Amino acid sequence: MAIHVQKFGGTSVGSPEKIKNVAKIVLDTKKRTGNKMVVVLSAMGHTTDELIELSKNVSSVRSDREMDMLLATGEQISIALLAMALHELGAKAVSLTGYQAGIKTQPVHSRSRILEIDTKRVEKYLDEDNIVIVAGFQGFTEELEITTLGRGGSDTTAVALAGSLKAELCEIFTDVEGVYTGDPRVIPDAYKLKEISYEEMLELASLGAQVLHPRSIECASFYGTVVHVRSTFSNNGGTYVKGVDALEIKNSVSGVAIDKNQAKIALLDVPDRPGMAAKLFTAIAEQFYIVDMIIQSVKDSFTNDIAFTVSRDDMEAVVKIAEAVAAEIGCTKIVSDTNVAKVSIVGAGMVGKPGVAAAMFKSLGDNGINIQMISTSEIKISCIVKLDECEEAARVIHKNLILRNL
Amino acid sequence: MAIHVQKFGGTSVGSPEKIKNVAKIVLDTKKRTGNKMVVVLSAMGHTTDELIELSKNVSSVRSDREMDMLLATGEQISIALLAMALHELGAKAVSLTGYQAGIKTQPVHSRSRILEIDTKRVEKYLDEDNIVIVAGFQGFTEELEITTLGRGGSDTTAVALAGSLKAELCEIFTDVEGVYTGDPRVIPDAYKLKEISYEEMLELASLGAQVLHPRSIECASFYGTVVHVRSTFSNNGGTYVKGVDALEIKNSVSGVAIDKNQAKIALLDVPDRPGMAAKLFTAIAEQFYIVDMIIQSVKDSFTNDIAFTVSRDDMEAVVKIAEAVAAEIGCTKIVSDTNVAKVSIVGAGMVGKPGVAAAMFKSLGDNGINIQMISTSEIKISCIVKLDECEEAARVIHKNLILRNL
Repeated sequence: MAIHVQKFGGTSVGSPEKIKNVAKIVLDTKKRTGNKMVVVLSAMGHTTDELIELSKNVSSVRSDREMDMLLATGEQISIALLAMALHELGAKAVSLTGYQAGIKTQPVHSRSRILEIDTKRVEKYLDEDNIVIVAGFQGFTEELEITTLGRGGSDTTAVALAGSLKAELCEIFTDVEGVYTGDPRVIPDAYKLKEISYEEMLELASLGAQVLHPRSIECASFYGTVVHVRSTFSNNGGTYVKGVDALEIKNSVSGVAIDKNQAKIALLDVPDRPGMAAKLFTAIAEQFYIVDMIIQSVKDSFTNDIAFTVSRDDMEAVVKIAEAVAAEIGCTKIVSDTNVAKVSIVGAGMVGKPGVAAAMFKSLGDNGINIQMISTSEIKISCIVKLDECEEAARVIHKNLILRNL
Repeated sequence: MAIHVQKFGGTSVGSPEKIKNVAKIVLDTKKRTGNKMVVVLSAMGHTTDELIELSKNVSSVRSDREMDMLLATGEQISIALLAMALHELGAKAVSLTGYQAGIKTQPVHSRSRILEIDTKRVEKYLDEDNIVIVAGFQGFTEELEITTLGRGGSDTTAVALAGSLKAELCEIFTDVEGVYTGDPRVIPDAYKLKEISYEEMLELASLGAQVLHPRSIECASFYGTVVHVRSTFSNNGGTYVKGVDALEIKNSVSGVAIDKNQAKIALLDVPDRPGMAAKLFTAIAEQFYIVDMIIQSVKDSFTNDIAFTVSRDDMEAVVKIAEAVAAEIGCTKIVSDTNVAKVSIVGAGMVGKPGVAAAMFKSLGDNGINIQMISTSEIKISCIVKLDECEEAARVIHKNLILRNL
């Protein structure tokens, strides 16, 4: 019998009624497929926010260990309730905390990573014909400390469990129907992809398509687990995320994404001497800020302009670092700009198809959208444009590249 | 350094403000005494009720394992919050779940009993100068299952931890000032006892004085742990519960208690043959109903009357059992009565002081209160009276025996 993992997020288990609905979905799947079922849950809807609010009311001191102790109760509540809802339907079911499910993590609180999963107990309960319900988002250390996995933690629990159990399929139930070629709120023409590669999904996830957290995709890619992203609230098939070799069709462009959390910083008239850029980006990296795109352009034979982007929240701090470096290297002009956004296209088939980049730039140019910066990888092309032009940029790219199946 | 255990119940940690107050009490005690502090908490105020309500909304099937999984989150929330509140005050503190604190129980859900406590981790954290906060009411089995201890569970956790750690004192903070000679709502003259023996407390607890659960008193008695019952909301000293040998004064009567949860069942005209009573009470015991008081009176040389009391909730079921037995033994008259209550006096010094029983009966008789049944033990005398006379009965007994220090 194949093992089948299903994960339901906070909105899918947000009320007793919704938990009953999840119980039905799980039991129906078991009956229809005959598979052994493992279910991973997040905390109910607003539980996590309520617990954080409680903690703020007793203390202003950040205490990651105690916060993990507190937040881990959220999933423990939802797994117990789902087990009860399954019992109500006459099914055998047991719930397991991260500890009981053998999810061993780094000795780090609030943003830990899974080291390994001892699936012994999960398998024992599966062999006894139980539906096994595992608390997502949480694990334990060698010292028996409770840890949480941070953002995207429950997805990661599900995918890692699926990988460790050699599950045939890992279904991630969420409040969207799957992975789209673009954000339907911005691009009305966007359509649901039948499948997408880990690599593309990773780029799309990093670019702000909030369907699957990058960590869970990396994990799926590591194990080669097929992930099915689909809606809790409809029976429609969703999007399969799988290895690029397993794809039926490699789209040259699978999707377009917008990232508005960008800020541009530029050092102008930097003396054209070796090591200037190294000095700047070393100083920034030493403070753990992440630089996204970098452009260096030669202005004349004596000076360069160096422009780069960081996340909007980091801008102020990074400008300070840049100013210190600038003073040192004799550059006096620093400008920063939050009126920017990044528009990206992603496609596993892009590498074998020349002219995709050109078509993207032409679409933007034809529609009067100026490109400020460009960065490319094997499966991605990103452009920085003005913030208020980014949605239009995504629409014209979607129309000219994706709908025309370029 | 001595170890000092403090336990706070649900009303004492019912809000963020109250949790902050508990943090102050604990830290003040640590500073004042220099003791190593262990704190045991219940779930916040209505958390348990809310969780039970949630469970009812998803399932009508009773699932003790999953209910324990669910309810154990209640204490986990309060211990994390208290640790944070102590951090806010600059104190070192860690919270531990039942599992982490080594509280090993029977493999029974919803009403488990502590088998042993492995205090290794608690002691390690104490040695590192932490205030150690332990989740009450919960433990774990050899199979790593989460269990709960049922009613009075947090008191039992506190007392068992104090015993295992050889703590100097176990303070039970509650919403009353201590143990009284009677219920002050019924007996305005009732006063707080400075000390009481385990045995007396056990009788009073069983008799409905809801200060300490009988299980926790048995546990304290087993370890010889001195328990101090006191109020979270005042600085007044409470009542010390200790071994009878350690008492300064042995009161002949320490307190009077009322138990209204009584029902009387009588079989009239039972044939006077050997084995009649045995047949009846064996049948009742086989269905796990607890019989409290029993009276058999000889009516004439051929028949007896057998009367006994059970808890009110059990009456209907027990009457059915009695009817079946009655039919078998040829008795046709069964009467039952819920218009009864039990009034009891308890005193460790009663045994050495003749005339206490007589004084009790005289008090009742002088005040026109008829005694229907009597039962006595070394430290207790109980009388069944009419329900609507029981409070007056308690008042006259309190006045004539306790206030006069008989």
